[in-house]
Amino acid sequence: MGESALPARPRFRSKDSQVRDAYHEELDSLTDSLVEMTRLVRSAMARAVTALLDADLRLSEEVISGDEHVNKIDAAIEATVFDLMARQQPVAGDLRTLITALRMSGDLERMGDLAVHIAKTARRRHPESAVPPELQAIVLEMGQIAERMIAKTGSVIASQDVEMGLELDADDDQMDRLHRRLFDILLSPKWRHGVEPAVDITLAGRYFERFADHAVHVAENVVYLVTGQRPEEIIDSA
Amino acid sequence: MGESALPARPRFRSKDSQVRDAYHEELDSLTDSLVEMTRLVRSAMARAVTALLDADLRLSEEVISGDEHVNKIDAAIEATVFDLMARQQPVAGDLRTLITALRMSGDLERMGDLAVHIAKTARRRHPESAVPPELQAIVLEMGQIAERMIAKTGSVIASQDVEMGLELDADDDQMDRLHRRLFDILLSPKWRHGVEPAVDITLAGRYFERFADHAVHVAENVVYLVTGQRPEEIIDSA
Repeated sequence: MGESALPARPRFRSKDSQVRDAYHEELDSLTDSLVEMTRLVRSAMARAVTALLDADLRLSEEVISGDEHVNKIDAAIEATVFDLMARQQPVAGDLRTLITALRMSGDLERMGDLAVHIAKTARRRHPESAVPPELQAIVLEMGQIAERMIAKTGSVIASQDVEMGLELDADDDQMDRLHRRLFDILLSPKWRHGVEPAVDITLAGRYFERFADHAVHVAENVVYLVTGQRPEEIIDSA
Repeated sequence: MGESALPARPRFRSKDSQVRDAYHEELDSLTDSLVEMTRLVRSAMARAVTALLDADLRLSEEVISGDEHVNKIDAAIEATVFDLMARQQPVAGDLRTLITALRMSGDLERMGDLAVHIAKTARRRHPESAVPPELQAIVLEMGQIAERMIAKTGSVIASQDVEMGLELDADDDQMDRLHRRLFDILLSPKWRHGVEPAVDITLAGRYFERFADHAVHVAENVVYLVTGQRPEEIIDSA
């Protein structure tokens, strides 16, 4: 997905507004900011996972310092939302849109923090890798799922694609399965790396799992905004 | 603090409203619901810590099943907030109050989840205790700080006591120190319990730490609502 290829159809906007006015331009700019956050968080997570697997200190430092940018966008979104609320007295539908934007921004900010936590795990163990050889494949796969989930989250926000939003649940299940396999290996009698790598991997596993949960949460918010239904209601009635 | 001893001074209400009307009654009922959540979460955390230390299966089951009550109050708060917004078209100050109530409710709901995670750790390891003898004192102290923090959070919400809100930062620092000591013991050459208890304790430590972070976050929201300043601004200018 090209960065500039934002879809032409209406995004955070009440359905009955046909005229493009300054207010709805600002709502659209919120969408753009949220998508930009997903792009930054995706890049942070990709680099954090590489830093973790390859014990790359420079990459981990980049992720840690780069998080400020994500936090700034989060703060700007909050300021814009409060400003729009104060000036425009939006009606119920738009209010819900604005509050949902705040929530998504909060989730994405937290996902940036989790990428930072993974980068810090890499930094703490440098010059060694925090990931023993027999776990490299699983951790790589968890990182790839995380990256795919945040990429989809960005697409879901930009396009309000409900189908794709519902896919995130399956990705999350896959993440949970890998998380359990990670623990199976950690806790097997064959584990020969002792306590310190076990602690690192336990925390990293938790960070991946929470990252996935937040992605699901963002997608759920979009699905709810578009359909008025929670994802489980849609799946139940399908 | 007695449960019925809610303070007489105005709580979630704009400063210039002198007349008690239905709208402001509803804002007050939001405060009561948030305080009720803190009471439930406090009780859940206290029981979860006892379950963890004493390997008490019945207590851990109670915490796990009791969380539904917390989730229901969270959902009711969300419904009330959206209803008030739709019906009342609140002005900027009240909007901020309502959004802050939503955020606090979200934090408290998450704190309930963290108590459940601790209870599940206890249940997973039953009939053994997940906490080796040399860590019992530290885990007990982390539990006590957690309980004190959620109790203060309830008082801060009920009384809008900014001083007490600022105290939460010091409690959080204390939690962080204990969390580091926990890792020092886990990672010392004297550790003789192997990987499985290390994994449990790593996760439990993380749950306590996050619990404290959420308490600080709730208090920060109250401080901001009352003073218009973030806690760090108040401390800087003191």
